[in-house]
Amino acid sequence: MSLSLNQWTTRRWSVAEAVDGCVRHGLEAIGLWRQDVAEQGLAETVKLVRAAGLRVSSLCRGGFLTAGGLPGEEGRRAFAEALDDNRRAVDEAAELGAACLVMVVGGLPGVRPGEPLGERSGQAPGEGPAGPSPFSRDLAGARERVAEGLAELAPYAGERGVRLALEPLHPMYCPDRAVISTLGQALDLSLPFPPQQVGVVVDTFHVWWDPQLFEQIARAGDRIASYQVCDYLHPLPADVLLGRGMMGDGVIDFRPITRAVQEAGYTGDVEVEIFNADVWAADPDEVLATMKARYAGVVLPA
Amino acid sequence: MSLSLNQWTTRRWSVAEAVDGCVRHGLEAIGLWRQDVAEQGLAETVKLVRAAGLRVSSLCRGGFLTAGGLPGEEGRRAFAEALDDNRRAVDEAAELGAACLVMVVGGLPGVRPGEPLGERSGQAPGEGPAGPSPFSRDLAGARERVAEGLAELAPYAGERGVRLALEPLHPMYCPDRAVISTLGQALDLSLPFPPQQVGVVVDTFHVWWDPQLFEQIARAGDRIASYQVCDYLHPLPADVLLGRGMMGDGVIDFRPITRAVQEAGYTGDVEVEIFNADVWAADPDEVLATMKARYAGVVLPA
Repeated sequence: MSLSLNQWTTRRWSVAEAVDGCVRHGLEAIGLWRQDVAEQGLAETVKLVRAAGLRVSSLCRGGFLTAGGLPGEEGRRAFAEALDDNRRAVDEAAELGAACLVMVVGGLPGVRPGEPLGERSGQAPGEGPAGPSPFSRDLAGARERVAEGLAELAPYAGERGVRLALEPLHPMYCPDRAVISTLGQALDLSLPFPPQQVGVVVDTFHVWWDPQLFEQIARAGDRIASYQVCDYLHPLPADVLLGRGMMGDGVIDFRPITRAVQEAGYTGDVEVEIFNADVWAADPDEVLATMKARYAGVVLPA
Repeated sequence: MSLSLNQWTTRRWSVAEAVDGCVRHGLEAIGLWRQDVAEQGLAETVKLVRAAGLRVSSLCRGGFLTAGGLPGEEGRRAFAEALDDNRRAVDEAAELGAACLVMVVGGLPGVRPGEPLGERSGQAPGEGPAGPSPFSRDLAGARERVAEGLAELAPYAGERGVRLALEPLHPMYCPDRAVISTLGQALDLSLPFPPQQVGVVVDTFHVWWDPQLFEQIARAGDRIASYQVCDYLHPLPADVLLGRGMMGDGVIDFRPITRAVQEAGYTGDVEVEIFNADVWAADPDEVLATMKARYAGVVLPA
């Protein structure tokens, strides 16, 4: 296993700057985000990472397949658009030679991060005017949309040599970001497809609390497509998305998790992906130095 | 099943006022909190609820057994104190004839709600000075402390006719409030004891996201000691403890959960427990009227 910088950890760096930073600090891999790659230019990014001799440990992100759960034409259009966007993401991952395309599958249809609920929020279901509502409480249905989307996308990805990596997100993101909340559930959804088409992400922030974590990591075996590390801060900041901290700054005991991921057979890169206002405000070179020290001191088994 | 007011939903009411409110609105049961009972006086509370003909659907709360995970003498003392306090809670629940004593088992040892982490927070484990640290990342150990505590308390409760009700809390509370995060995990911990000594709480806010929810409710059967309802708001407020909303104001689809709890054989009260700044600011009589309407319109199966 070797350390990889997910570029959002040093968010103020462009792709070109992050690539330079990785080289400067002796890292062999980088995790990229689609919008930053687009800003740098896809072809230019490919050139940069190849020239630097870096692996692309992941591309973030595909997914958001659940909007198809909105009723009628609106739902059908949203699902088709999501599939189109995911196919573009697969194409980009193929160009980049990324080890996987991380899939954040989406929350309840029509529930948006940080935004208040739609017209139903102040009233009981059924009390409002007839017609489509702007969000849906149908969690089971949303999960079915994910399975349907995967059935469309997995073969497309497979043909292009791209592995989809289903990421279970912490249950606090279930309303708005991911109706997949546990590693076991992600594995269940991956089983209809070959392991090289659909794998799973183990991200410590999202799964550290799970009483079934170690049993599910062992069960995952060669389905583990990505191992991402960052800490879970306490208390969480007001914007819970930014509760991801530098390893050692929060409550997670990393070593047993890393050991379990190794024992499951994972030999890929270990990506550090931190969303955190203080980390983003710090000098990126210092962030990389700290990241390397903490990786050795806290994440790797003694 | 019949509706019960957990008194924290109308937090500005004293026990006496909440008892009056229940009678005025035709409710048959009330859920009480230890500190409010203490303020009213235990004997006086017993008198009030009996005179009003109310059932006590639950007493909140016992638990916080994990402090025993701190090293050495500090841990031993904390564990002994927690057991003493829990025995007092059992005695109070027996006096009140409460249907159960809700157990919030505690988070990682030394991690306190709303407070920053102790000396280890800014440093990697092992980097700091030798000696006991003020918090522990040993999640597995914390869960063992819970099992040990239950082994002490379950017979004590059983002898007094009190049922302990293990409450899985939403995983976002794992650091500071409960290392039990899923219904399945709570059930596993309850199995060594007779169902009348140790049951589980199904609280919609905490478990709605769980992909195993319906299978675990069915598995729970007569272990279900309490069914509590409130909604999961989106977005969550800055203090996530106050993200509990009136049924219909959030993202939870209650009816399938209520139906599953009924089909598992639960015939007890349905407690509404809302921690929410707006609900607390509102006229408690209006809160009860809304609660009754939403219970009929959103919680009970059609």
